[in-house]
Amino acid sequence: MSATAACPDPFKPAQRVAGQRQDVWSIVNEAAAASPKQPIVNMGQGFFGYNPPQFALDAAKAALDRVDCNQYSPTKGRPRLKNALADAYSPFFGRQLNPDTEVTITTGANEGMLSAFMGFIEQGDEVIIFEPFFDQYISNIEMPGGTIRYVPLQPPKDGAIKTLPASEWSIDFDALEKTINSKTKMIVLNSPHNPVGKVFSRDELERIGDLAVKHNLIILSDEVYDRLYYVPFTRIATMKPEYWERTLTVGSAGKAFYATGWRVGYLIGPEHLIKYVAGAHTRICYSSVSPLQEAAAVAFEEADKQGFWDQSREEMKGKMERFCQVFDELNIPYSDPEGGYFVLANMASVKLPEDYPFPPHVASRPRDFKLCWFLIHEVGVAAIPPTEFYTDANSHIAEDYLRFAVCKEDNILETAKERLRGLKKYIVR
Amino acid sequence: MSATAACPDPFKPAQRVAGQRQDVWSIVNEAAAASPKQPIVNMGQGFFGYNPPQFALDAAKAALDRVDCNQYSPTKGRPRLKNALADAYSPFFGRQLNPDTEVTITTGANEGMLSAFMGFIEQGDEVIIFEPFFDQYISNIEMPGGTIRYVPLQPPKDGAIKTLPASEWSIDFDALEKTINSKTKMIVLNSPHNPVGKVFSRDELERIGDLAVKHNLIILSDEVYDRLYYVPFTRIATMKPEYWERTLTVGSAGKAFYATGWRVGYLIGPEHLIKYVAGAHTRICYSSVSPLQEAAAVAFEEADKQGFWDQSREEMKGKMERFCQVFDELNIPYSDPEGGYFVLANMASVKLPEDYPFPPHVASRPRDFKLCWFLIHEVGVAAIPPTEFYTDANSHIAEDYLRFAVCKEDNILETAKERLRGLKKYIVR
Repeated sequence: MSATAACPDPFKPAQRVAGQRQDVWSIVNEAAAASPKQPIVNMGQGFFGYNPPQFALDAAKAALDRVDCNQYSPTKGRPRLKNALADAYSPFFGRQLNPDTEVTITTGANEGMLSAFMGFIEQGDEVIIFEPFFDQYISNIEMPGGTIRYVPLQPPKDGAIKTLPASEWSIDFDALEKTINSKTKMIVLNSPHNPVGKVFSRDELERIGDLAVKHNLIILSDEVYDRLYYVPFTRIATMKPEYWERTLTVGSAGKAFYATGWRVGYLIGPEHLIKYVAGAHTRICYSSVSPLQEAAAVAFEEADKQGFWDQSREEMKGKMERFCQVFDELNIPYSDPEGGYFVLANMASVKLPEDYPFPPHVASRPRDFKLCWFLIHEVGVAAIPPTEFYTDANSHIAEDYLRFAVCKEDNILETAKERLRGLKKYIVR
Repeated sequence: MSATAACPDPFKPAQRVAGQRQDVWSIVNEAAAASPKQPIVNMGQGFFGYNPPQFALDAAKAALDRVDCNQYSPTKGRPRLKNALADAYSPFFGRQLNPDTEVTITTGANEGMLSAFMGFIEQGDEVIIFEPFFDQYISNIEMPGGTIRYVPLQPPKDGAIKTLPASEWSIDFDALEKTINSKTKMIVLNSPHNPVGKVFSRDELERIGDLAVKHNLIILSDEVYDRLYYVPFTRIATMKPEYWERTLTVGSAGKAFYATGWRVGYLIGPEHLIKYVAGAHTRICYSSVSPLQEAAAVAFEEADKQGFWDQSREEMKGKMERFCQVFDELNIPYSDPEGGYFVLANMASVKLPEDYPFPPHVASRPRDFKLCWFLIHEVGVAAIPPTEFYTDANSHIAEDYLRFAVCKEDNILETAKERLRGLKKYIVR
């Protein structure tokens, strides 16, 4: 492409962005575009199929009329949002959170996680994550030079034959402890978990927390689905003072208020951790989107007053139950979610025709990619192959599963169900 | 702070965020809060003192009512914004820009620059920047492991005694070429320049461009003030095909539409560069703020139709002239800006009282920090000390200057002028 191609390539990209395998989102989009079943019902990516609550939208519009709300926010976030978050979370944390030192705002939870890694990880430091993982963790840890150690969640043994609670995905604590060494600096948790739908139990969190204390690790607890739990939900930072002092809790106004495009995230933790997250954030994005921070502030203020959290949780639980009926009907087992808006269905019984014309970049991937392609083409429903969230070594664990996002309008869920009934003829037991 | 302080500090931050000198913005804010002249007239940071144009605000509000505009944008940006930018910039570039491959959207120009460095810089690669520099360049280059080489712009020799055009800040091309070596990977330009107000001439750009071609460098051209020029403005990427193929041009919808808090930036360039910027951006922020991207799209469409660019440029030029009158009156020389909204005034003639009680962290910095503190306390006007934008070795070049931002309402400019007249009694010649 370069006129100077005789020389060593002057436009050679950095290793961190070179050599990308085609990502799952573009495979799904490409399959969707090529499918005869138009329009595809998209149950893949976890964006909401409906708008934020009116009080959040009204607040955003009001902010747009204010000069200060259209200009740079302070790098650590708009004061009203930090105050609203401190007020909203202090009861959970059992302490009065200091909005200036114990809360910081980021450009979505994603850049918040990156800021945490940038704040603490040096070349060669190790970070432990559980598999399956949110795919952005990988680049976010590798960018500052971190090395990732993976600990797979163990799937329920009977996951292919019966529906079991997502809690049955379990942690091998021996494997976890063996993974820790003198280079280990951080461990990443995600509860409620994407894509498994597991809410980590108090007992599990205590065992993880005690290991973190014993080995002096920082805990990064990704709790972006913290308002959507269907069993009791515990925040690890709130369990013991020695967990608090080493835990960064990550939240997302976008997930909380059905606005994944707003890019307003936040971290809560002790000052000696938060200040370096904020320092890294300043170097990455300088500051975050100002009018939508103000809108999020008002939304957090209103949500408690208007009973929005209960309503939101009930509504999502209803969507989950409504959608999963089709798997019950088809006798397709799933991991019954304890939180969040994703469900993993086990498609081991779906027989893929031997000669089915999968394109090479799908044929070369694990079975879930083929299931994904097949569903898009044969029934017109898009889901996500979860082995994308695994290392190659462990991807066999999830190759019969597909992830469905239920944060869609009820009529879309019903259409998806109707289409999924078309799988019946491929189910073999 | 840690209960486990006997061990090596488990919460030790990464080098990249540790050991920060107090930054200029917090010094200015602290001085402003402590000043007897309340409220301070803030001519420091470059945020606008007025709202975006109504067509941009209306578009933002309309976007908030659309489900898709509140959800994740595609990682490379919303199609309507990429199309609007391709349409708006194709005439300047003398080629039909491909919105899908030659334009990408970032979370403000700042994260756009970071994405460019993350896309191309490996540990030990060198990047050349001119002094004074936009301070975020430093961390943005160092984060991916780059080493910075500085080339100071040479100030006008008579800058302390007469007002001269900002073009008089000149490039020592011998020094520039000597700085290039086999590790040099990129060179960063900024035109119109912050804080100097210089618009690089065609001749200067051609000499820089030819050096980049000769030594196979990528040019990162920060053109965030591209709509505010008061002399002919040239985009380096548009001068020769061999510049185009190696240039990433950075723009900012926030700067263009008086909305620094919107965090919508963009890069334009050849596909072989843009794709890795987009790849890095995906790993940093995943995607950028969705409703304000849509608003920026409409704003770019409307701006051309409504003659907004001419109006915007005329208005800012008027503000610059209005404000600089006070320096003419006081016989304080300044670098007459050719673009942008910053002006550097030379305060060599302002005599600071010998026993003035500067706090230690100001007393230890160059004279411009003392001038800044003094102005805030004695006349109630905040400006920025430009040595913050220099390495220590070269800070003497700018120690008599202060940077004023004129993107404020006219009555604020008049108040600032009235206050600055209070400097008269300190001026000694």
